[in-house]
Amino acid sequence: MGNTFGHSFRITTWGESHGDAVGVVVDGCPPLVEINLADIQRELDRRRPGQSKISTQRKEADKAEILSGVFENKSLGTPISIVVWNEDMKGKDYNHMKDVYRPSHADYTYDAKYGIRNWKGGGRASARETIGRVAAGAIAKAILKTEFGVEILAWVDAVGTLKADIDASKVKVADVEANAVRCPDLDDAAAMEEMIKKARKEGDSLGGTIRCIAKGVPAGWGSPVFDKLEAELAKGILSIPACKGIEFGSGFDGASMTGVEHNDVFTTDEEGNIRTATNRSGGIQGGISNGELISLRAAFKPTATILKTQETVNADGEPATLKGKGRHDPCVVPRAVPIIEAMMALSLVDHALRQRGQCG
Amino acid sequence: MGNTFGHSFRITTWGESHGDAVGVVVDGCPPLVEINLADIQRELDRRRPGQSKISTQRKEADKAEILSGVFENKSLGTPISIVVWNEDMKGKDYNHMKDVYRPSHADYTYDAKYGIRNWKGGGRASARETIGRVAAGAIAKAILKTEFGVEILAWVDAVGTLKADIDASKVKVADVEANAVRCPDLDDAAAMEEMIKKARKEGDSLGGTIRCIAKGVPAGWGSPVFDKLEAELAKGILSIPACKGIEFGSGFDGASMTGVEHNDVFTTDEEGNIRTATNRSGGIQGGISNGELISLRAAFKPTATILKTQETVNADGEPATLKGKGRHDPCVVPRAVPIIEAMMALSLVDHALRQRGQCG
Amino acid sequence: MGNTFGHSFRITTWGESHGDAVGVVVDGCPPLVEINLADIQRELDRRRPGQSKISTQRKEADKAEILSGVFENKSLGTPISIVVWNEDMKGKDYNHMKDVYRPSHADYTYDAKYGIRNWKGGGRASARETIGRVAAGAIAKAILKTEFGVEILAWVDAVGTLKADIDASKVKVADVEANAVRCPDLDDAAAMEEMIKKARKEGDSLGGTIRCIAKGVPAGWGSPVFDKLEAELAKGILSIPACKGIEFGSGFDGASMTGVEHNDVFTTDEEGNIRTATNRSGGIQGGISNGELISLRAAFKPTATILKTQETVNADGEPATLKGKGRHDPCVVPRAVPIIEAMMALSLVDHALRQRGQCG
Amino acid sequence: MGNTFGHSFRITTWGESHGDAVGVVVDGCPPLVEINLADIQRELDRRRPGQSKISTQRKEADKAEILSGVFENKSLGTPISIVVWNEDMKGKDYNHMKDVYRPSHADYTYDAKYGIRNWKGGGRASARETIGRVAAGAIAKAILKTEFGVEILAWVDAVGTLKADIDASKVKVADVEANAVRCPDLDDAAAMEEMIKKARKEGDSLGGTIRCIAKGVPAGWGSPVFDKLEAELAKGILSIPACKGIEFGSGFDGASMTGVEHNDVFTTDEEGNIRTATNRSGGIQGGISNGELISLRAAFKPTATILKTQETVNADGEPATLKGKGRHDPCVVPRAVPIIEAMMALSLVDHALRQRGQCG
Repeated sequence: MGNTFGHSFRITTWGESHGDAVGVVVDGCPPLVEINLADIQRELDRRRPGQSKISTQRKEADKAEILSGVFENKSLGTPISIVVWNEDMKGKDYNHMKDVYRPSHADYTYDAKYGIRNWKGGGRASARETIGRVAAGAIAKAILKTEFGVEILAWVDAVGTLKADIDASKVKVADVEANAVRCPDLDDAAAMEEMIKKARKEGDSLGGTIRCIAKGVPAGWGSPVFDKLEAELAKGILSIPACKGIEFGSGFDGASMTGVEHNDVFTTDEEGNIRTATNRSGGIQGGISNGELISLRAAFKPTATILKTQETVNADGEPATLKGKGRHDPCVVPRAVPIIEAMMALSLVDHALRQRGQCG
Repeated sequence: MGNTFGHSFRITTWGESHGDAVGVVVDGCPPLVEINLADIQRELDRRRPGQSKISTQRKEADKAEILSGVFENKSLGTPISIVVWNEDMKGKDYNHMKDVYRPSHADYTYDAKYGIRNWKGGGRASARETIGRVAAGAIAKAILKTEFGVEILAWVDAVGTLKADIDASKVKVADVEANAVRCPDLDDAAAMEEMIKKARKEGDSLGGTIRCIAKGVPAGWGSPVFDKLEAELAKGILSIPACKGIEFGSGFDGASMTGVEHNDVFTTDEEGNIRTATNRSGGIQGGISNGELISLRAAFKPTATILKTQETVNADGEPATLKGKGRHDPCVVPRAVPIIEAMMALSLVDHALRQRGQCG
Repeated sequence: MGNTFGHSFRITTWGESHGDAVGVVVDGCPPLVEINLADIQRELDRRRPGQSKISTQRKEADKAEILSGVFENKSLGTPISIVVWNEDMKGKDYNHMKDVYRPSHADYTYDAKYGIRNWKGGGRASARETIGRVAAGAIAKAILKTEFGVEILAWVDAVGTLKADIDASKVKVADVEANAVRCPDLDDAAAMEEMIKKARKEGDSLGGTIRCIAKGVPAGWGSPVFDKLEAELAKGILSIPACKGIEFGSGFDGASMTGVEHNDVFTTDEEGNIRTATNRSGGIQGGISNGELISLRAAFKPTATILKTQETVNADGEPATLKGKGRHDPCVVPRAVPIIEAMMALSLVDHALRQRGQCG
Repeated sequence: MGNTFGHSFRITTWGESHGDAVGVVVDGCPPLVEINLADIQRELDRRRPGQSKISTQRKEADKAEILSGVFENKSLGTPISIVVWNEDMKGKDYNHMKDVYRPSHADYTYDAKYGIRNWKGGGRASARETIGRVAAGAIAKAILKTEFGVEILAWVDAVGTLKADIDASKVKVADVEANAVRCPDLDDAAAMEEMIKKARKEGDSLGGTIRCIAKGVPAGWGSPVFDKLEAELAKGILSIPACKGIEFGSGFDGASMTGVEHNDVFTTDEEGNIRTATNRSGGIQGGISNGELISLRAAFKPTATILKTQETVNADGEPATLKGKGRHDPCVVPRAVPIIEAMMALSLVDHALRQRGQCG
């Protein structure tokens, strides 16, 4: 279980990294939404390996095919099935790992859980699983934009020890996509790129953090208790491989502030709309959007795959040595940007439909 | 919607802070579990207001009644309904807030969502909603302890700017409960208590962070994709009022480490069990428990209720002044400790049953 | 598990027949719906025992209390918790059944499933469980009537071997409520009443069938595949105790017709609306409402409780004799009428909200 | 929504009849189950068109491909994705129906719901949607047989007005598969075949009924309230296209019996197991299996597609004439046999895993 996400707009992903294909089924999509394969492909291209010098050199075209649910470029309201065939599955790269547990990978925990795993690659723990999310996210983005005027944008704001200082209100998608790191500050981006190249050369890897915002979300989306927007977004984003932390608005820093410092005072804007003077709440109060920018930050650990020799054990608990080889992503965060955007979009569109259903 | 949590062990909470009662229905509890009202009450007593000088002075006994699902102190396997009557609902305290939005509270977002709210208090956004979680969590803890040998423990590790330095492997529940702040370092606890008293005197409030661990979780609980343990725990804990961030294992700090530094090398312990030499993964790899201590940290913003005059607007968007009065909790984290433990327990017992269902 | 019904408008019932209380939590109710306790009580009064000479003589007032989710007679959009206290729990009546399995009751299957049961009555298998459904159904009916113009009506159309011949299009609620049997044909009703009295005198029991219709359902509610209207209604109605069959439109009789005879030809009415000339489909085509009368019929087996001596076994499989005594309902169908209406209403309101959520 | 079935063992189907493909994703399958493509294909071959002279002459190989979740013929515990490509999509056959509503089909209700439909065929309302169910059902059957010793068997017991009289306890799968009608009484089967051929020749169609049994289900599967076995099975089976009724055990006939006649008296068998002397309950009491044969009967209306000229309306409500042509199934019940078996298997395996999860 656990391969389905969402309540009213729900996706189910399937596929192992070294099986025949990966894919997604989207259920609950409103009818008559314009669905363009090109929009889906554009998002997949942002996610796919081999797109720049700092990502893994695996070459996979990751071409999406829509198998159902769309008719003459419009959604039918029935399930949309999207498949991407696995092409570059160099199974032989993985033979040395059949019985040996890679540190900080999921090999051991899969064996502990299931008593079996597809050892030719990372199985469902591979980042390839996220292809389905990104494809479905492209549809979610289209609905949010067209029907609700909501836009989603993410960028890298730290790689390793280098933290960029970005004004969220001024970031544009073109700035993010202008460089391989997806950091809108060009100087920081250049420095991050060097860090990543250096890590690759050393066979090491880096972590980082991503900011993600949603503009134009009206007040009233979300739910007061277990399905608070923070809770649902956190679930979606912490389900991304390698993500180990999330914060909303002021987040961990806010925990050391006082109420007088932290409270977002209400005011009205020029058009008379109720607004908050500050946005330490990250656009969410009581689990429900308040009309401000929804803002979160997520932490990603360094890639577990490194090209160094590591001590480990085999399936019998005997000592073993693992010599990293092959291709790897020295830093996942640039490619995680479209994945985070997808999860943000999927959560928000689900709550948009839930709000319409309950409150009309 | 959104008032139900869990898949196989699921709870539904109900009740406004200033309605007649609050409560919970637990569905999916295994049969023949020993259910003692005293165990439930003990957890509720840890959560209730008025338990110490640093929490709100509201006096509510918060006495639980079990209305169904238990027979001769054993669970029947059918829904367990627990109710706590609201006693100290001084509605008059809230009259001044009927049309005025309290900053960083949920008054405005509820109105935006529903077009109506019970303005006599915080409604479902009140911390009283968590009574049901804590009562259900006591049952979850009992199952985890008796059937699976799992124990859960949380404590305050920061209040405002003061961060305690605690060795998680050595904390005992007695140390946590020995002081009103629930910080196991007595010196830090004393300093934190002073900070909280000072904030109260000033009509201000403080935030803080809580660590929560689970000991004895076997390898194999969790799920590879959307229902990763991190994802499910994050959802549960970020659904607690005032919680704005979470991290697992090395968390945000881990994002600035390299793979060589961060990877948890596998080894075996004296009994030949596969273990990791370090635990930067926080006991979870690929979304599945690996047998190590499950460890997370959550950030809470300062209490939104402060006893200062604040500028705000009313429901018509007109400027208004809010003069805080009445009783409030100057810092929520001490009382949030049993709530976090409850959400950890509820998530874990759900996954324990799911694992037994799927994998036998 | 299994105590929750519905997707967007969902109810969770709880309570054993001989515990402290029974109740329901309604989640997903739209806000600002007028909720009158009197409306709920009226439905409960139609369901409660002791209301006429042909139902059980147990006296239970079954007074509903609303504990949450309603404020100044309007729904808040948050969970509505309703409780009914058990008053007339003559536990002693049941002592003789502690270790003996009543034929065609659920005593044995509960023991087989859970290894424990509350033998002081039927536990969750008791018809008292349906109190929560009827209370929630009253709210569902109010929403359907006010917001969607839909009305629901059920009646008894057979008791034992006597089948009434009723024109569904002409039945009025007043006709149904005019007699204790709830059969709108007064002659048949009188004969049925005699049959039931005779069965009671003999310590025997009778089954019967109920028709239920929904008027005013617009075309477009429902879902094409697993959540077809027939499928969801069947689930709801076959979850009522003692219900063992259901059919929609022409149902079992339709299975022996030919396509030429059976097809519902499309036409238009005086206002130009698309209609069908006949309604063998029972208002549902492809799982989706077509704007005609939704029509179903449900079969109820005779009450398992009879006041005859029956051979059976005890929990150890040893032969035992069960001497029926106490009070019982010689025929459940009159009291099942409001329960079927409730399940019809709950299914329809759920699909109304789902339709609004997905299709706007 | 509504394209997912099951709680712990859940399937999601996708695909229009005249799109590229149809398929299913199975989530929650236990690991290490032997999955043979040949077993899946055998069930699909029983369902596919063109298999005999009395079914539609469309030729579709309906070859299944497993795209994920299986490794070296064992289930991985992760989602199993199965696809069947649509080959024989003679779109031109359907051009005449672009704007005209076929009587008793779902064309009109789809338009009413979604405002759009894939008019090149029946879309999701087509029986092709059931391919995914049958493929997933083959896996469910394998688990039931291997892990729980449960076998499922269905057969045609009525076509049109001809009702066969079959002793359920003596039916063998070979008898069912020995003839094209799938009725184990050879004389009745021959007569039914003639009836079907005659209906085809006349361009008419027939309905019928199917019995389905499950042998070896242990006492204790199911759930007391909304997820009663009858309720879940009814939902599953009434979600099959053209199904309009279901009954369990004595069903509608039982409604005219008395309690004395109907109750299933408990006794013990030679091995001392608790059994019932009769099985009017159809193996289910209080919604939970009692160890006897689970037995149900389902009614199917006559195929809506007939090769006669029918009066109808177009999308504008204007009168139109529909001249049936092309290929059609004059009677669906023979091909519905494997579909009913699949839904029975899917419901039961779901409850098997749920029982193991909750009760150990």
